[in-house]
Amino acid sequence: MEGKYIIAVDFGGTKIATAIFNSNMSVVSKIKVDSEAAKGKEHTITLILDSIRQVMKLSGVAAEQLAGVGVSSLGPLNLSKGVILYPATLGWKNVPIRQLIYDEFKAPVFLENDCNAGAYGELLLGAGRGSDNLIYITVSTGIGGGIIIDKKIYQGKNGASGEFGHICIEDDGRKCLCGNFGCLEAYASGTAIVAIAKEYLSKQKDSILLELSNNNPDNIDCFMIEKAAYLGDIPSVQIWENAGQKLGHGISILLQLLDPNVIIIGGGVTKAWSLFYLPMLNAIKKHTYMSTYDDVSIVRAQLGQESCLFGAAMIAAKEIGFPSSI
Amino acid sequence: MEGKYIIAVDFGGTKIATAIFNSNMSVVSKIKVDSEAAKGKEHTITLILDSIRQVMKLSGVAAEQLAGVGVSSLGPLNLSKGVILYPATLGWKNVPIRQLIYDEFKAPVFLENDCNAGAYGELLLGAGRGSDNLIYITVSTGIGGGIIIDKKIYQGKNGASGEFGHICIEDDGRKCLCGNFGCLEAYASGTAIVAIAKEYLSKQKDSILLELSNNNPDNIDCFMIEKAAYLGDIPSVQIWENAGQKLGHGISILLQLLDPNVIIIGGGVTKAWSLFYLPMLNAIKKHTYMSTYDDVSIVRAQLGQESCLFGAAMIAAKEIGFPSSI
Repeated sequence: MEGKYIIAVDFGGTKIATAIFNSNMSVVSKIKVDSEAAKGKEHTITLILDSIRQVMKLSGVAAEQLAGVGVSSLGPLNLSKGVILYPATLGWKNVPIRQLIYDEFKAPVFLENDCNAGAYGELLLGAGRGSDNLIYITVSTGIGGGIIIDKKIYQGKNGASGEFGHICIEDDGRKCLCGNFGCLEAYASGTAIVAIAKEYLSKQKDSILLELSNNNPDNIDCFMIEKAAYLGDIPSVQIWENAGQKLGHGISILLQLLDPNVIIIGGGVTKAWSLFYLPMLNAIKKHTYMSTYDDVSIVRAQLGQESCLFGAAMIAAKEIGFPSSI
Repeated sequence: MEGKYIIAVDFGGTKIATAIFNSNMSVVSKIKVDSEAAKGKEHTITLILDSIRQVMKLSGVAAEQLAGVGVSSLGPLNLSKGVILYPATLGWKNVPIRQLIYDEFKAPVFLENDCNAGAYGELLLGAGRGSDNLIYITVSTGIGGGIIIDKKIYQGKNGASGEFGHICIEDDGRKCLCGNFGCLEAYASGTAIVAIAKEYLSKQKDSILLELSNNNPDNIDCFMIEKAAYLGDIPSVQIWENAGQKLGHGISILLQLLDPNVIIIGGGVTKAWSLFYLPMLNAIKKHTYMSTYDDVSIVRAQLGQESCLFGAAMIAAKEIGFPSSI
């Protein structure tokens, strides 16, 4: 085969998505596997390297045809060293992912925080096309953010910008997994929504969530709470309303500070969009000064679960000056 | 006289500061007058134009020697049209300041939001020298912010970025002058600090503020509360502590989202720095996730009351490609 190829890896904690792109930035092969992070970091590293080998094999691309590899990873990261530091949910730390990939494939490797990669993907290929400044939010197990300013990823001094899930929206509020209190993530992440439902059921029994979970609240997940709400379960409806309000409170702060062109919301929790969208918009209006609210688009990610994967590919393409059709 | 000159005007609502700079960006003349805004917009406009005439006269500079005029103004502004829109505290609106100055002096006029001008002044000449990314906060009658990213003023889509005083830190909290509830400005601005002291005195009489104000709480201002605190007045000490905590809560949000090199705090309320600095730092630590807190300088504005004036001058100098020693 002729030409040069780019590989993108999206390591999101539970899943590893890997794709290979040709010089038109078309996807040639793509796979997705569980990261099996509980089996330790060596195991997950092997799966990541295996995924790259697999997409190369599927598309018949040899290592010398690779122009570069873009890696989107959950953080925190040390970007200058190319290391995954200590993802809170994984229990292991310090993976020199850039070096590990380079050692085998001998192509330049570009590591980026997953939210930043997602923001970049949406900027170039999704809901942010044509924007100068945007904020991409993921509402998933946790809540994160990626900030694009002047069409570039904004990383901050330590690569620690966009920690949207850990802005405090209630002094001495709910305890967050980060150890602080009142973080947005403690109210509106998928993890928080499930925790709030369980807390409710420990006190009240008037929700069909009990039935849906076979009377075992430990079985409850976000999808069950979504389903319950659509079945008219008032406590579940209120849980989503509350999550939407808190998210809207957080977004109002983004609007006040950054006045972006667009705010793009991705992550698994957006599957329940119609349950939290209006409470979210009302809260944004309530907490936002002046006309900023009326003027800003607040939309779902257009690339769905692939914002980060495509973002990682585009970051690599840009860094190596890869010709692309964008 | 030879060479080209730049004029800077800082219109802050109550005062008009005006200075003229030579080609080394040295101040040649400077004056400061009350804006007498209550007398109507025509009156204030006349004072602004008069101030420019005066500094030119003082320094013997003719209109044809002017290279440009930088104007820092309280907002909100329409930057593309060069108009002061409707400053909440002034009671008048829609002043086409850029055109008015140009009509008389025939030099290009550059209008900027006062907090952005202050941020730019501190970036080039003050506490932000050498930084790529910084946030300048004014804590004064109100609270505002200016954001520098990649050494440039970040204005946002509508020029409405940096509305730091109106981020909501407490849902359904204290009413703000903007009409919303729980804004930072409603807790930590000079106006709020005075209001909180008066509310306290309407319920409790155990503060020397009563004595200092001749038993008339209407006489209380920020300086009196500062003085009372230094005299050991517990209620006054607590008012400053509380303001510092709220300000720290707000600053933690800036750190989480923007991970800047430095946060610079200016404005009249910083005169009471030692009364709120430690409570502010403690609150920042309390509300900030991970190591960002330890890594960021949080300092007072080095240009004092002149951040905006110098910032306006430097904006004009940059726009017209003025040679400067910076």
